[in-house]
Amino acid sequence: MRNAFHEQLDGIFDDLATICGQVEVAVARATRALLEADSSLAEQVISDDAEIDHAREKVEDSALSLLSLQAPVAGDLRVVVSALRMVSDLERMGDLSVHVAKISRLRTPGYAVPDAARPTIARMAEIAEEMVGRTAEIIRTRDIEAADQLRAADDEMDQLRRQTFADLLAKDWQHGVEAAVDLALLGRYYERIADHAVSVASRVVFVVTGETPS
Amino acid sequence: MRNAFHEQLDGIFDDLATICGQVEVAVARATRALLEADSSLAEQVISDDAEIDHAREKVEDSALSLLSLQAPVAGDLRVVVSALRMVSDLERMGDLSVHVAKISRLRTPGYAVPDAARPTIARMAEIAEEMVGRTAEIIRTRDIEAADQLRAADDEMDQLRRQTFADLLAKDWQHGVEAAVDLALLGRYYERIADHAVSVASRVVFVVTGETPS
Repeated sequence: MRNAFHEQLDGIFDDLATICGQVEVAVARATRALLEADSSLAEQVISDDAEIDHAREKVEDSALSLLSLQAPVAGDLRVVVSALRMVSDLERMGDLSVHVAKISRLRTPGYAVPDAARPTIARMAEIAEEMVGRTAEIIRTRDIEAADQLRAADDEMDQLRRQTFADLLAKDWQHGVEAAVDLALLGRYYERIADHAVSVASRVVFVVTGETPS
Repeated sequence: MRNAFHEQLDGIFDDLATICGQVEVAVARATRALLEADSSLAEQVISDDAEIDHAREKVEDSALSLLSLQAPVAGDLRVVVSALRMVSDLERMGDLSVHVAKISRLRTPGYAVPDAARPTIARMAEIAEEMVGRTAEIIRTRDIEAADQLRAADDEMDQLRRQTFADLLAKDWQHGVEAAVDLALLGRYYERIADHAVSVASRVVFVVTGETPS
């Protein structure tokens, strides 16, 4: 039988999945703003981030209230603390989407990403968005196999990050310093979004199994 | 009279101050490795990071044990949760020092930072190191005025970050794309170290006053 503690915990995990869904939208929109030089969409990502911050506060309040009222110990305690960490990761992923949107906004009406680097960045963005979507699903379903698989996607991300450096350091790079710096930072932001997604998924594994994947 | 809870909590804050001291050393060494192209010092920063990670785990275990055994509520609970967040920030600052060390290692025997950009990066590094040192002191003394002053240093950091962009995007930048990208990333790493220092200091203010500075 499920008790009050586990019901409240389920509520927190529902909220985490919802926030992860909001982050997925933020990543998708920031990418579209970037690749289509759409400054109003970039503005929207930047202003909508307040909703993610607000949702984070709500989860933190719920988790603290759960700790206060139920005083969980051992495994239950670690699960609540994991939820607090997950919501920090998710908020940070939202911030990183804002960073992408700001680079886009800075360059409109031009494009931040030159055509030559477009496939790499588009693929990084696609992986990041997909990883965030899968992470939301992993929070919902507690599917630890899916969490393990997420690491494979992260490997491709690391490879693409190296590719961005190879692109912009190649002798035939003709797009100047500004585009190179944008590209390096964009690569960093998408890579960090993916890192945080893996971190959230690992915490789900911990919540289910009591062990952190190595 | 101080009870067992507060004694254990003091122990956790002592550990946090010690970790912050380790981070200060990491930032200082990473900077020296960078500016003096000292690859063995860079290696040391990279390998010593495991100690910070280990110390983080120890603080987490102590905080969880405190939550389990004492089941604090209200303000006391929030203080313990703040300690958990502070140790996350500190570990991340260690990781960022490693990122600086890795850029240094990648370019040795050459210098990652061209002479023209040296003053800006040296100043950013100096501010970061100083901010981390002051943060360790703030954790030790719970000096909330010093925590407020830390923000002023962060403003200069933001200004210098903009300066790095102005430098590398200037028409007379003659150091190529690679150095520009290194500079943009180094600027980002030092800025993030400073951000985390402000975050840690703000949590100290919260611990003392019960309110987060705006």
